[in-house]
Parts: sequence; structure tokens; C-alpha cells
Amino acid sequence: MKLVGIAMLVVSSACLAEEPDSYQPAATNVWGAQYPRVDSNGRAQFRVKAPNATKVVVNFWSVPKLEMTKQPDGFWTVTSAPIVPGFHYYTLLIDGAEVTDLNSHTFFGGGKDASGIEIPEAGSTYYSIQDVPHGQVREIWYNSKVAGSWRRALVYTPPGYDVRTSERFPVLYLQHGGGEDETGWTKQGRANFILDNLIASGNCRPMIIVMAYGYARHAGRPAPDLTGKPFGSPEAMRAMEEMASAFEDDITQVLIPYIDSNFRTIPDRDHRAMAGLSMGGMQTFQVTFNHLDLFSYIGGFSGAAGPLVLGNEKLDAKTAYHGALADPAAFAKKVHLLWLGVGTEEPERMRVGLLRLHTSLLEAGIQHVFYESPGTSHEWQTWRRDLRDFAPRLFQQATQ
Amino acid sequence: MKLVGIAMLVVSSACLAEEPDSYQPAATNVWGAQYPRVDSNGRAQFRVKAPNATKVVVNFWSVPKLEMTKQPDGFWTVTSAPIVPGFHYYTLLIDGAEVTDLNSHTFFGGGKDASGIEIPEAGSTYYSIQDVPHGQVREIWYNSKVAGSWRRALVYTPPGYDVRTSERFPVLYLQHGGGEDETGWTKQGRANFILDNLIASGNCRPMIIVMAYGYARHAGRPAPDLTGKPFGSPEAMRAMEEMASAFEDDITQVLIPYIDSNFRTIPDRDHRAMAGLSMGGMQTFQVTFNHLDLFSYIGGFSGAAGPLVLGNEKLDAKTAYHGALADPAAFAKKVHLLWLGVGTEEPERMRVGLLRLHTSLLEAGIQHVFYESPGTSHEWQTWRRDLRDFAPRLFQQATQ
Repeated sequence: MKLVGIAMLVVSSACLAEEPDSYQPAATNVWGAQYPRVDSNGRAQFRVKAPNATKVVVNFWSVPKLEMTKQPDGFWTVTSAPIVPGFHYYTLLIDGAEVTDLNSHTFFGGGKDASGIEIPEAGSTYYSIQDVPHGQVREIWYNSKVAGSWRRALVYTPPGYDVRTSERFPVLYLQHGGGEDETGWTKQGRANFILDNLIASGNCRPMIIVMAYGYARHAGRPAPDLTGKPFGSPEAMRAMEEMASAFEDDITQVLIPYIDSNFRTIPDRDHRAMAGLSMGGMQTFQVTFNHLDLFSYIGGFSGAAGPLVLGNEKLDAKTAYHGALADPAAFAKKVHLLWLGVGTEEPERMRVGLLRLHTSLLEAGIQHVFYESPGTSHEWQTWRRDLRDFAPRLFQQATQ
Repeated sequence: MKLVGIAMLVVSSACLAEEPDSYQPAATNVWGAQYPRVDSNGRAQFRVKAPNATKVVVNFWSVPKLEMTKQPDGFWTVTSAPIVPGFHYYTLLIDGAEVTDLNSHTFFGGGKDASGIEIPEAGSTYYSIQDVPHGQVREIWYNSKVAGSWRRALVYTPPGYDVRTSERFPVLYLQHGGGEDETGWTKQGRANFILDNLIASGNCRPMIIVMAYGYARHAGRPAPDLTGKPFGSPEAMRAMEEMASAFEDDITQVLIPYIDSNFRTIPDRDHRAMAGLSMGGMQTFQVTFNHLDLFSYIGGFSGAAGPLVLGNEKLDAKTAYHGALADPAAFAKKVHLLWLGVGTEEPERMRVGLLRLHTSLLEAGIQHVFYESPGTSHEWQTWRRDLRDFAPRLFQQATQ
């Protein structure tokens, strides 16, 4: 297997022996696993048993890959340069086979249960569990007539939901990215802890968050065979576009009515928001702009207008989304918040696309918030910060 | 790596070509993954990309391992003989490295996020999602003064819990096995669907189920380093015994009060049950017999009395558990249900141990239910059947 761009960040094992105490097992590890471990500078050490392998690589997705070195005991080891704080997906490449590191818990991304490593951010407690009242994350199943199948969603209920039983709450629909699923926002994103902390500090209105499964097929349509078609391939992208329409129908025709029937929501557009990251941002624009009768708060995290972002064209505010943006004054009256975010270190294609969308909206006179996460890429640290900035702005104009 | 006991169950690829349509992707697969796939006879086909590997093995834990064959395209393939229905953990051994199959979702077992494959059982719908009212599975976090840390538990609330807000419910504490965690009973065991179906058919009283994390350390005690000490090793077993005492304190002093404060329970011993599988069964015996003031329904699934089961001694009913079993009449009056289960195909050591306990209890005149799951081993199909038999017997003698 050809590997391009492997950073040679290996330090000698002698160096490891000099500072054993500064490293701590990563928070993403399974219990008892001493590796991978991280020091206070964000350097990570990996150790993997593969006694008969001839080549082992730590296959990071958004930070430099690491070629490992075989030790006499059959373990392979490597130490990274400092890694930007946050959650990073990785797999291992062992003699050409892509697999996970059994030392790590798995996190669904790239269409698979992959490994991940959490690099702590000094001083950041907003996404950690704190001694504050906690909400619950509930697994629910609903029977979708659109998809012709049972579908799972996760629902965050704010602290006190079970106690203040006469109170009703606004709802944020919050979507994962392509290749991820409904577990991403809590497992990787820690959305529940972010909201617990924001609510405890009085900076955010208590709300329900619904995290849906972002793929759907209309009932009766066959499943696309994506064998050998990785995320990002033309076949996978086409399948996603086909799925987007089914997802739009499922969320608007089935899931929202289900949530409004089964949770104490305030079931009107003034108290309903939607946001999503990457693919979920594109879905958010599609769903909300096509259904402004249902939503009044809109967020696109590192992904928003789909072809507008990914292609080379500017947004034509007069025609886009059936003219939803054509009248800036009318739009501002109807949409209480339009929020866009991007990390300063995101891949050029995404960063340029988001900046172009931002500029297009400015030129068209469409009020919106544009947030840039300093130093972070197309990864969860960007999206945690997005949620921290976005959530406190929600439901402030609502009448109830 | 030396591999003993690999069953040579490979069939020719010509044979595969004759019946391509009879195989379906396993329900445990990630979306889009066509392999592993299963036919109606329970035969499974695996396909793994490892172009530069020299040996690849499907490393089942409780059914025969399968040595794979390299194909010209760089994929390795194998077809199994019929496999007993149910959920089976596996990993892959690629050139001596133990890893997961990225085609499969992961399931926490053996202290790692491992692969798993579901072999359907013809005619069995009791653990499938059905068109009946569904409960919720809630992730909760509680601050344990015993452990000095935040701990996660999963809580099943029965259908209607959020609607019938004046109603209170009995509680079953349900524990996973050694090497597993609090996710096991719903992900692998499908306990939520089993209860949904039992409740819908009127065969089971609506109840709350609490699934706790079965490991604990008393606050301030250092974590044992289990690097290179696999589950079942003396070091790991010793660490488990040390943890058992902390777990007993955590569940009785922290978790039960938390649940009774935060859920609409009926907070008395007549409406509180505990059961667990394997290690969780041993924990159940320890916790319930030491706290009969808290529990009146007790279940041991493929594991119960700890040393009594694993050792060679019979139960001395006069002295065991501080004399809790010494007076059969008093015991029968106090404990409404003592339930033991074992699969007929479990490893000899476990089966003999459970049968010895059953005999000891019979000889001591201790009333109990003894259930044998036909044809199944120390695996989740046994424990799904256990729960199906056990749950309907709960809270029938309760006064409320």
C-alpha cells in the first residue's frame, strides 16, 4: 500500500525512557490500556502488538500519519509531535489492512467504528463533565413510514426535565457529519456536557436536543451497494444526495411529529432550531430553507449550502432555495438566527467555500453570524466550539 | 502466532457462486458492508482486505475459529459451517495482531470494542424490534462518593413512563459480564426490546431496568496496570475481586439512592430485583445476599456464587453469605425469587459449577428456579433467554 505524507515524527525509545511520568493514558482508551498516552504538550505515544507484521502505521485522518517502529518484544511504538487539542479519529494500517487499535474505544466515523484519541486542551472545561446538574441522553426508536423501517435517534433532555413536568422546552435538531451517525454529537462531540455546562452557568436556555440518524432511503428503494466505494467517492456522494431527500421527508414528516408527541416541546417554529456539521450542515440548509414554517434558527458548522460551498459558484440569493433568501428584510424577520462556522485550519476547499458563502450572504444583505475556530481543522474541536457559541444564541427571541 | 483448534470449515469459492442470493449482510454490520453475511442455515461468510498479510484468522471466542484464504484481489475470504444462533464476538488475527473487522459494528467485550456477528434464530422475535410501544434507554451520569468519580449507567424506562407520571415502577438492576460494560445488555443482549415485547404481550410487569458499570475502585486507590494481563488472567481476576467490594458499595450506597431520587421507583425491597450474567451473576449474589434489606428477587445467569461455582466445593448453606441461606423457610419468605440459569453447551467448568450449586440448593431445601438454555454456550443467546424467562417472574408477589 502506498502511503503519501507520513510525517517522520518518531523519537528514540531512549527519549521515551527519560520522561515516563509526564504521559497519561488517553481519556478515549478502554479501561486498563496504558497506550495510547498523551503528555501535557499534546504529544501522543502509541504501542501496538503485531509480532509478525512488516509495516504498521497510525493512520490519522486529519493530522499527520505516523509510521511505527518494531521493537524486539513484538510491539510497535511511535511518538508524535504535539497534536492540536481535541478528538482525532485514527485507524491502524497493518500490512495493508485498515483496522482499529484495540487500546482505544471506537467512535463511528468514516462509515466504520474507528479508533479515536482525545488530546486535552489546557484550561478548557466546557466540554468536560462538571459537578453541575446533568441532562439525560435517551435512545428512542420510531417507526418511519417514510423509510419503511425503525429508526433510532438520541434525545438530550435538559437537567430537571423529569421534575419540572409542567414545563415545555424548545428543541434543537443537531446532525452529525458524513460517515458518522447519531452517536457522534455525544460520544465525540460531548454535546450533552457542553449543554449541561452552558445551562448551569445561565448562558443557555434549557432545551431538548434531537440527534437523528442522517441517512435514509424511501421505503421500497433498494440499498446502494457501497462495497469498495469509500466515503467521498462519486458513488457514495450520489447515494448521499439520494438519501438527503428521504432524510428531509423523514425528519419533517415523521421525526418532528414524533418528538412533539413524545416530549414536552414547544411545538412551533419560534422554538425549533436545526444545525449540523459538514454533511449535516448541508442537510440543515436543505431542510430548514425548504421548511421555514418549521424552523427559525439555523446553523451550518463547517458545511452549509452544499454545492454552493463545494463548487466554485457564489450564492445567488435571489434564486437559491426557491427564493427563501430573496428578500433580506423578510428573511431577517422570519429567521431569528443564521449561523455559519469554520475552522481556520480546515482544508482549503471547505474554508474557501464557507468564506464564499459568508461573502455572498453579506453582499445579499442577509444577516448572519460567521464564526471562525482558531487553529482547528475539519474536526470535532471545531464543532464543540461551534455548539458553545451557537447554543446560547438560541430561543432568545422566542416569546415563551 | 500459534493457533490451536482452528476448524477447517472452508468451502470452495465455486460453492459460493452457486448460491449467492441466499446470503444476507449480518444485522451487526455497519451500513453498506456486504460482509460478513449469513445464510438461513447460519453459515457465515467473511471477507477482509489485507493485501500484504501472510495469515488472517476469524478469531471467534465461543465458536470455532476460521482460517481465511487469500484471494488474488488482496481480499481474504472464508465460509463457516452453520453457527449456533445468537450474537458472537470475534476479532481478526492479522499477522499476529488482534484487531477488529471494520465491516462490523463494535461491541464492548473482553475489555475491548470487538467485532460481533448476529446469527438469526428462526422464528425468534422476542428480542427483535416489533411494532409495539417502546421504552427508552437513558444514559445517566452520577457522582460517586464511593469511587470518587463520575460514573455512567444506562436506564431502561418502560413504555408510557413519561405519560403516566403519577405511576411508580419496580426496578431490576441488571449487570453485564466480565470484560463487558453497561452497554452490553442493550447492544448485545437487546434487553430493551425483550422487555418491550414482554410488556406488550402482558407477560411482564412494566419495570425500570438499571444497567450499571460493573467495575469500581474505592476513591484514592490507584488503578491496577492490566497491560498484558488479559481477561481471565490471575492479575485481572484479583483486580476484579478488589473491584467487587467497591462495586457493592457504589451500587448500594450511591446508585440505588440516585435512582430512587431521580426516577419514579417503588423504593422498597419488594420492588427491587438484581440479576447479572457471569461476573455480573457473582456480583449479584454478593450484593443481594449481603443486602437482603434491599432486594427480594435474585437472578444468576451463567454465573452466581463465585468461588462456589468456579471451585470444587459444594455450597455450605449453613455458613455461606453470613448465614443468609441457613434457614430455608425464612429465606423463602424473604426472597420471592432465586433464579439460576446455564446453557447446555457452556464450558464444562461453568456448567458443572452451576449444576453443583443447583444441587446444593436442592439439598439445603432452598427454593429456586433452575433454567437450562438448550444448545447455547456462555454467550448472549443464553442470557437473552434467561431474561425472557426471568423478567415475567418479577414483582408478582409484590403488594403494589
